[in-house]
Amino acid sequence: MNWLDQSIMRTRGLGKDRTGQTHSLTEALQGRYHYTIGPYSDPVLHIKPGDRVIVETRDAFESKIQTEQDLPSKVLTMPFVNPQNGPVMVEGAEKGDVLAVYIEEIAPRGPNPRGTCAMIPQFGALSGTSLTAMLAEDLPELVRKIDLDEQGVYWSKRVTFPYRPHIGTLSCSPEIDSINTLTPDSHGGNMDLPDMGPGSITYLPVQSAGGRLFIGDAHACQGDGEVCGTAVEFASTTTIQVDLIKHWNIQWPRLENESVIMSIGSARPLEDATRIAYKELILWMEAEYGYDRWDAYMMLSQCGQVRLGNFVDPKYTVGAGISKKYLAAV
Amino acid sequence: MNWLDQSIMRTRGLGKDRTGQTHSLTEALQGRYHYTIGPYSDPVLHIKPGDRVIVETRDAFESKIQTEQDLPSKVLTMPFVNPQNGPVMVEGAEKGDVLAVYIEEIAPRGPNPRGTCAMIPQFGALSGTSLTAMLAEDLPELVRKIDLDEQGVYWSKRVTFPYRPHIGTLSCSPEIDSINTLTPDSHGGNMDLPDMGPGSITYLPVQSAGGRLFIGDAHACQGDGEVCGTAVEFASTTTIQVDLIKHWNIQWPRLENESVIMSIGSARPLEDATRIAYKELILWMEAEYGYDRWDAYMMLSQCGQVRLGNFVDPKYTVGAGISKKYLAAV
Amino acid sequence: MNWLDQSIMRTRGLGKDRTGQTHSLTEALQGRYHYTIGPYSDPVLHIKPGDRVIVETRDAFESKIQTEQDLPSKVLTMPFVNPQNGPVMVEGAEKGDVLAVYIEEIAPRGPNPRGTCAMIPQFGALSGTSLTAMLAEDLPELVRKIDLDEQGVYWSKRVTFPYRPHIGTLSCSPEIDSINTLTPDSHGGNMDLPDMGPGSITYLPVQSAGGRLFIGDAHACQGDGEVCGTAVEFASTTTIQVDLIKHWNIQWPRLENESVIMSIGSARPLEDATRIAYKELILWMEAEYGYDRWDAYMMLSQCGQVRLGNFVDPKYTVGAGISKKYLAAV
Amino acid sequence: MNWLDQSIMRTRGLGKDRTGQTHSLTEALQGRYHYTIGPYSDPVLHIKPGDRVIVETRDAFESKIQTEQDLPSKVLTMPFVNPQNGPVMVEGAEKGDVLAVYIEEIAPRGPNPRGTCAMIPQFGALSGTSLTAMLAEDLPELVRKIDLDEQGVYWSKRVTFPYRPHIGTLSCSPEIDSINTLTPDSHGGNMDLPDMGPGSITYLPVQSAGGRLFIGDAHACQGDGEVCGTAVEFASTTTIQVDLIKHWNIQWPRLENESVIMSIGSARPLEDATRIAYKELILWMEAEYGYDRWDAYMMLSQCGQVRLGNFVDPKYTVGAGISKKYLAAV
Repeated sequence: MNWLDQSIMRTRGLGKDRTGQTHSLTEALQGRYHYTIGPYSDPVLHIKPGDRVIVETRDAFESKIQTEQDLPSKVLTMPFVNPQNGPVMVEGAEKGDVLAVYIEEIAPRGPNPRGTCAMIPQFGALSGTSLTAMLAEDLPELVRKIDLDEQGVYWSKRVTFPYRPHIGTLSCSPEIDSINTLTPDSHGGNMDLPDMGPGSITYLPVQSAGGRLFIGDAHACQGDGEVCGTAVEFASTTTIQVDLIKHWNIQWPRLENESVIMSIGSARPLEDATRIAYKELILWMEAEYGYDRWDAYMMLSQCGQVRLGNFVDPKYTVGAGISKKYLAAV
Repeated sequence: MNWLDQSIMRTRGLGKDRTGQTHSLTEALQGRYHYTIGPYSDPVLHIKPGDRVIVETRDAFESKIQTEQDLPSKVLTMPFVNPQNGPVMVEGAEKGDVLAVYIEEIAPRGPNPRGTCAMIPQFGALSGTSLTAMLAEDLPELVRKIDLDEQGVYWSKRVTFPYRPHIGTLSCSPEIDSINTLTPDSHGGNMDLPDMGPGSITYLPVQSAGGRLFIGDAHACQGDGEVCGTAVEFASTTTIQVDLIKHWNIQWPRLENESVIMSIGSARPLEDATRIAYKELILWMEAEYGYDRWDAYMMLSQCGQVRLGNFVDPKYTVGAGISKKYLAAV
Repeated sequence: MNWLDQSIMRTRGLGKDRTGQTHSLTEALQGRYHYTIGPYSDPVLHIKPGDRVIVETRDAFESKIQTEQDLPSKVLTMPFVNPQNGPVMVEGAEKGDVLAVYIEEIAPRGPNPRGTCAMIPQFGALSGTSLTAMLAEDLPELVRKIDLDEQGVYWSKRVTFPYRPHIGTLSCSPEIDSINTLTPDSHGGNMDLPDMGPGSITYLPVQSAGGRLFIGDAHACQGDGEVCGTAVEFASTTTIQVDLIKHWNIQWPRLENESVIMSIGSARPLEDATRIAYKELILWMEAEYGYDRWDAYMMLSQCGQVRLGNFVDPKYTVGAGISKKYLAAV
Repeated sequence: MNWLDQSIMRTRGLGKDRTGQTHSLTEALQGRYHYTIGPYSDPVLHIKPGDRVIVETRDAFESKIQTEQDLPSKVLTMPFVNPQNGPVMVEGAEKGDVLAVYIEEIAPRGPNPRGTCAMIPQFGALSGTSLTAMLAEDLPELVRKIDLDEQGVYWSKRVTFPYRPHIGTLSCSPEIDSINTLTPDSHGGNMDLPDMGPGSITYLPVQSAGGRLFIGDAHACQGDGEVCGTAVEFASTTTIQVDLIKHWNIQWPRLENESVIMSIGSARPLEDATRIAYKELILWMEAEYGYDRWDAYMMLSQCGQVRLGNFVDPKYTVGAGISKKYLAAV
C-alpha cells in the first residue's frame, strides 16, 4: 500500500468512498482572477469531496512581463498582482472542517520563455521595503525571462535548475477578512513553500461555508526563503484532488507527503513564524500520534526539520516537520 | 490666530470655505457595526468636506462585558470584536487624496461602570499569543469594570487616572483588502495611539472613492504600548469634523496637533513600525518644510519624539513626531 | 523635603550617613580609556559609597572628528570607539548589590565646535547595517560639527536645540563577559537613554566585587531612538554621586527622577526590549509598592510611559516608567 | 580526487605542503575550561597550520547532570555553562586571516547514559526567556538521560535517532570582546549548526594573533532550530585538523562540505540572521566564483538552501548555502 492510501486525506476524507469527478477550471471559466482571498467574491466552481480540478493558473505577473525590457514598475499596478483562481466551493464544507488539497501535477503552460524572475524596487529580503523602511537608493530593477519545461529550468548557459514546481499560493477564505494575494497567514495564502509541489497534500482550515478554495502562483523552482522576492514564476496547468475532512479543528495549514508531516506558520518576525509552526506540530503529535507534549517538544529539538518558505512577503512562512518514521507506533 | 486655523486641514482642505453641516451617526442609523475595514460594506452616511459628524461608538467588546464575571472567553466570539461605525462617504474623495479627521470631543455614553479593561487569554504583550506562540499556561483571565466621567477614570481606591480619551481605530478603507478591526496598517485601523484624542487631526490616505471612513474603539485613557492588551474601553459620543485634501499622496497616516506633526507606522517587528514612522516624517520634512533629506535625518536624531501606540495588536503602531517650533521658516 | 531625599538612593544607600568625598577622574588619571566593559581591566579609582566623582569624559569619536571633512570611515578604527572612563571600584560592592549613580551635572569641555553628529556608513536605523544586511549602496557619509554651550545646541541658522545633556553609556561590569562599548545589555552599557541626564539616578546591578563602574558618551541632546545613529556627541565634565545599595537583587538597570520610576531593557527585536522593561517594572511594583502583579499589568496598560532610547545599537534600549503619583500609598 | 583535496582549505591553506603533527588536548592538559570566548585567557596549546588536534570536550552541562533528578536550576550556576576547550594558538595567524577547521571525527566519551537533554526554565523557543520576557508560569523543568553510541541515539522505546554528531560551539576570539559561550556572533561561538559535523570544514575569521581557537559543546544529534533549547548534549573526543588561510578577509563564519558552500549569520530577529547569511553568500559568489552580484541574488532565490541552526540562543544562527554543482565554471 502506498503512502497516499495511508494519508490523512485518504483515510479521513469524505471522498475516499467515491470516484471523484474531474473539472476543468480554464482561463475562460475563471474569467476574472482575484487579487484578494476572502468571502466577498463569486464562486466559479462547485465540486464534491474527492473531485479533481484541472486549473489554468496565471503567473504572478499575469503575463504582463513578456520580455526583459518589461519592467515591473512600468507594467504592473499594485496591488493587482498574483492573480488567483477560485473560489471553488466544496460541498458540505463548514467552519471547523479542513480541505485537503493533493497536488497531482503541475505542468507548464504557454510558449517559452515561460518563466519570469525579477528584482522589483522596494521588494526582496536584502532591500529596503514598504515595511522595512530604508533611505538608500533602490537596487537595480531587473527582469530575467527563462525557458523551462518539465526537464529543466534553463537559467543561463552555466546553470540549469531541475524542474521542481510548487504552488505558491493556496488557501481557503478567511471568515471575514479579504486578504491581498501577497500575504500569507493562518488561512494559507502566499506561503511560497517549496514543499507544496506534486506529491504533497496541504490541509487548510475551513472558515466559511464551502471552504472557498483559491489557488495560483506556480513556481518552476524556488530556493529557501525566495530571497530576491520572486521565484521562476510561470503559468501552469495544475491538477489537484480536493477532499473534505469533517470536524478537524486546526488553526494553521498543515502538509503531508511521503516522508514527513509539517505544520506551517506565517508571521513576522521570522522567529514567530517558526514558533507557530513548531507549536502546531507539537500539539498535532500530542493529539494524534500519542506523544506527551513535553516529549514531543524535546524530541523535535533532536529531529525537527525546518523549511523557510519565504522571508520577503508581508508575513514570512516557515514549515516545521517531522519524519513519518518517528510517528509509527512501536 | 490659533493653531487650528493654521493647520494643514484648515489651510488645504476643501471645507475651509463653507459652513459644514452636522450629522448624527447614532446606533440606530448605524444599524450593523463592522468587524472589517474594507470596500465591501454599504455606506451609512454621505457627507461633504468640512461637515461634522457626531458618532455613537460602541466599546471594543460591544457591551458584552457588563460585570467582572463576564469573561471575554465566554461572552466574546472572535473575530467579532472592536465594532466600527461607518463607512462614511466623503463627497469628492478619490484615490490619491487625504481625509482629515479633526476630533472635537469624546464624551462617555451609557451608565457607569462604563469602562472595561481585561486580561484576555493569548493576548497582551507579556503573554504568548496566536502569533508569538508559547507552550506555557495562559495568564489568568481577568476583567475590571471602571467608573469614569469627564473628570476622571476611577481605577481603584488608590488610583484615579485623568480622563484623556482617544480614538483607538480610525481609517479609510484599503483599496481591495478588507481588514479585521484588530489590525492596524497603512490604511490606519487599530492604531491605539494616545495622541489621537480631542484637539488632534489625523490624515488618512484615500484608497477608494468616497474614502469610506470607519471610526470606533474609544479609550478613556491608555498607557504607551497598551501592554496588557486593552485600555479603559468605553462607549462614546465622539464629535469629528471631516475634511478632504485633494492630491496629497501619502502612504501612511499622519497626525497634527497644536505642538507637533507626526507620522504613523504599523508593522512587526516594532523596529519596522518605528522605521516607517521616521522615514515618512523625513520625507514629509523634505517635501513640505524645506529640509534637506539628510539634514532632517540627522536633526530627528536630536529632537525626534517617539510614541509607542500599541505592541499588542497583530501589527504594532509607532508615531514619530517633531515639534512645530522646528518647522517654522527662519 | 525634596524628591532626592526620598529617593531609593538616599533612603537605602550606605552613603546616606556620611559626607562623601569628591574625586577627580581627569583624562590624565584615566590614561587609557576602555572600549569594552568587563572584568579584565585595571581600576583607575577606588571610592566609598556616597562619594562624588568629577569625570572628564571623551566624546564617542575620541576627538578624532575635528572638522566636517574628518570622515568616520577615514579617522575611526572599529571597534575602538565610544571610550569609557573607569573602572571605578566602590568599596563593599558585591554581586547581588546595586550601584546608584546620581548625575549632578554634565558640563561641556573643550573648544567649540564641541559637538559632533555623523551619518556613518552601515550605521543608523534607516540604513542597512552589519546586522540588518542589505545590498543597497551606503547612504552618504556626512559630518556635522556643532557649537554648543549650556544655553543651547546651535544646530543651524534655522534651529537651536535646548541643551539637554545625558550620559549615553553607564554600567557596572558583567560577571565574565567583556562587552564592547557600543552594545547595551543587562549590565547597562550603551543605552543612549535621554532620561539619564542631570537630576536622574540610575541603578545598576553589581555582578562582581567593587561593581566596576564605567561611564562615558555624553550627548548634548538626543531624540527618541537616536535615529541616524549618533547624537550631538561631546566631551564633558560630568559630576556624579555614587552610592551602594546592599542586597537589592535586580536583573536590569533602573532609573528614578523627580517624577517617575523606570525599568530599562535592551534587546532585539524592539518589542523584546519593551517586554523586558515592562516586566521588570511590574515585578518592581509588586515587590516594593504593594501592587498585585495583575493589577500592575492592567494599570500600566493605562498609564505606562515608554521611552525609546536607541534603535541603532547592536541591542535596542527601551525604558518603561510610571509616574510616582501612582506609587504613593492611599 | 576527492572533494577534500579540492576544498578551499586544502588548496589555499598553509598546511597543504606539510605533514601535520597530532596533538592531544586532554581534560588534564586543558585544566580550566572557559565560559567566555575572548582575548583574555591563557593559551593551552600552540600548533602549526595543518596540525591535527584530538580534543576532549565536556558536555554543555559539564557533567553536572548525571541523572534525570539533577535539575538544571539546582546543579548549574549561570553563566558557568557550555565549557570550552582552548584557546589553541595557530602559528602565523593574524587579523585578516582565516582558520580552517576540518572535523574528522566526533566520538562519544564516558559511560552511558552519556547524553543529556533538558527543558530549562526560561529557556527554549516556546518559553518566555530573559530576553522575550513573559509573565506566565515556567514550563516544567525536565531532564532526559539518553544512551548513545556511534550506532544510534536511543531516545525511547519507540524512537532511535541516527548518530549525527556535530560541534555546537566553535570560534576564534573576537578582537576585544570576551563573549559568553551561549552566544553566537560574527566570531562563531554557540552556533548550534547541525552541518558542523564530521566531513565539514568551518572557516573562522581571525581577529587577533594566533587566532585563539575555542571548541566545545558536542551534540549527538540536533533538529533544526534546537527548539526546546538543548540537543543531545554529550562529552566527546573530537578530532580536528586546523589550517591557516592567509589574507582571506571574511566577516562571518563560512562552511564547506562535499556538496555545498555555506555562509553563517547570527543575529536577532531571525530574518536578520538570514539576511546576513545570504548577503555573505552573494558576496562570496561574486568575489570567488565569477557571478555578477544581481545574478547571484536572483539565482539564490531559485536554489538557495537555508539551515536554521538555533533560534533559542541569545542570537539566532542561520546558514545559507548553495550546491557546489552550480559553482563549477562552464
